[in-house]
Amino acid sequence: MKKRRISKVIKIGKVTIGGGAPIVVQSMTKTDTRDAMSTINQIKELEECGCELVRVAVPDKEAAQALPAIKKGISIPLIADIHFDYHLALMAITAGVDGLRLNPGNISQPDKVSAIVRAAREKSIPIRIGVNAGSLPKTVNPELTTARQMVAVAMEQIRFLEELDFDLIKVSLKAFDVPTTIEAYYHIAEKIPYPLHIGITEAGPPKSGIIRSVAGISPLLYMGIGDTIRVSLSTHPREEVIAAYEILKSLNLRQHGPVLVSCPSCGRAEVDIISLAAEVEEKLIQINKPIKVAVMGCIVNGPGEARDADIGIACGKGRAILFKKGKKIGVVEEGDYIEVLMREVEGF
Amino acid sequence: MKKRRISKVIKIGKVTIGGGAPIVVQSMTKTDTRDAMSTINQIKELEECGCELVRVAVPDKEAAQALPAIKKGISIPLIADIHFDYHLALMAITAGVDGLRLNPGNISQPDKVSAIVRAAREKSIPIRIGVNAGSLPKTVNPELTTARQMVAVAMEQIRFLEELDFDLIKVSLKAFDVPTTIEAYYHIAEKIPYPLHIGITEAGPPKSGIIRSVAGISPLLYMGIGDTIRVSLSTHPREEVIAAYEILKSLNLRQHGPVLVSCPSCGRAEVDIISLAAEVEEKLIQINKPIKVAVMGCIVNGPGEARDADIGIACGKGRAILFKKGKKIGVVEEGDYIEVLMREVEGF
Repeated sequence: MKKRRISKVIKIGKVTIGGGAPIVVQSMTKTDTRDAMSTINQIKELEECGCELVRVAVPDKEAAQALPAIKKGISIPLIADIHFDYHLALMAITAGVDGLRLNPGNISQPDKVSAIVRAAREKSIPIRIGVNAGSLPKTVNPELTTARQMVAVAMEQIRFLEELDFDLIKVSLKAFDVPTTIEAYYHIAEKIPYPLHIGITEAGPPKSGIIRSVAGISPLLYMGIGDTIRVSLSTHPREEVIAAYEILKSLNLRQHGPVLVSCPSCGRAEVDIISLAAEVEEKLIQINKPIKVAVMGCIVNGPGEARDADIGIACGKGRAILFKKGKKIGVVEEGDYIEVLMREVEGF
Repeated sequence: MKKRRISKVIKIGKVTIGGGAPIVVQSMTKTDTRDAMSTINQIKELEECGCELVRVAVPDKEAAQALPAIKKGISIPLIADIHFDYHLALMAITAGVDGLRLNPGNISQPDKVSAIVRAAREKSIPIRIGVNAGSLPKTVNPELTTARQMVAVAMEQIRFLEELDFDLIKVSLKAFDVPTTIEAYYHIAEKIPYPLHIGITEAGPPKSGIIRSVAGISPLLYMGIGDTIRVSLSTHPREEVIAAYEILKSLNLRQHGPVLVSCPSCGRAEVDIISLAAEVEEKLIQINKPIKVAVMGCIVNGPGEARDADIGIACGKGRAILFKKGKKIGVVEEGDYIEVLMREVEGF
């Protein structure tokens, strides 16, 4: 695993991004932003499952007017997502948002961008330059690969902000195509000192969307690239946050609640490991501490993996060996597996 | 994306592995192998969803005796998974299996391994040396990192097989820990010419298990490493096969049925994109051809992404634009979205 790329640090509200800070998990609301109450409620749900930054779309004036109420009702920093209309960005800044996301594909006229930048600079509000393969400006050189086009669009906008003496910049370069996205981030990571927000755009509904997102985000994180992530899924944003933490946990980049090791089961299993693992997974949702739990179905890898966990059981015929921090601490009768395991987990 | 590592070619039954052949998707049965009928039925389900190789655990004599019946009842090559008892490997070879998987952590005595190798060589049956972090032999140098221990164990076994003039070798080095797994494969990929079977072991139940598996498999594939993959999940093996194809599709390494692009929805969406995408995803299960379908909720990236798809709709207020191969081919009224989209998909 490559060392993390150390970027400039920016702060969005009280959350630090870049410079080796923990990788920040963010999401976006799917409510009508004009409906402040629904939006606040959804953000509160996101806060509960660990979302650290939230973005809301601001498609019109009425949505911008709802921002002060939303800001007041939530605890995590609020980012306004702006397209087309620079007035909405100015309204969002006045409303007290903590960050802005602009799409250079549809706000690129110099006078409009500089009006936004001046207002953002005054309040020290970072701007994410969020390039999206689906909305590149027509001015970009069509002979470049899509990844290079995305980089070119971002670089032009970054240079423009820098000329205005603005450096509270974060950049994203998202595409649906995974190799395109990775290539784009890889190139821009070498060119600029700013933190990168990574993700795959329009990845789809949960199943295929999670796989596509992880397929793109994991190689980037493995290369040391990425300061904040969002998993975009066509479903409730809670699932985006849960998936983001699972990625970070898989790469040992963040701790966030339990990790469950369980064998896939095979013709060797002497217990219904699939039901057992599903039941333990369900019960672990209530556990808020970082703990590694193993539920293993046989003697091949069972004791080895269970031993490596904080608490584990390796099931044999009618009974299981219970492990705690690498030590065998008991034998459990079938029927008591879950109760005993969870008692140990709770007491750990 | 790095060029694929070109390995030696081996054949498991009629399936080619390595040498730049398409990456092969495999799974493992979770039935009792001794129950040939249930095992055949599960393998048939796997064949239907595209599984190309199947492995069965052979924990005892009775399981080995069921192998001829299983082999007869299925169409894809059969691999016997053997631990501890080398007699079972010999029985499996006699039974006509197409491949063997041995764990050097528990079959390492030279005379036993050479008995297996001689029998396999006679029938040109490849052997996977399947090292697992949870079952490393006690003889390995404990001062090495886990990844290096896994490589050392595999190398010792590989050398032993080579000395017996056997080179129908495939290797896997699986751990639950993702960075450990990637590191192990990365090192062995440089040392040996044999094809690699990649995966994360004991990854867990579907949700977290899929994310952990993709988090490990995708960086490897991105580095060009991996000739066959298995996603190990504590659930029905069908889900393992579906997930494997989603990974390969995400990295443009295989085509396999439709790809669905859909936006995550936000405060800008003018249609319930989450339900719409879920309904389209459900209907696409019936579609067997490789086709890229887009369901987009607004005008920001909608037309761009929908245009890039084979068939797409970009939904506005009460109506959507229908795209086919980058061209706008019509306007659809709300209520007709799915019917019209699916008609176009079926006729594509």
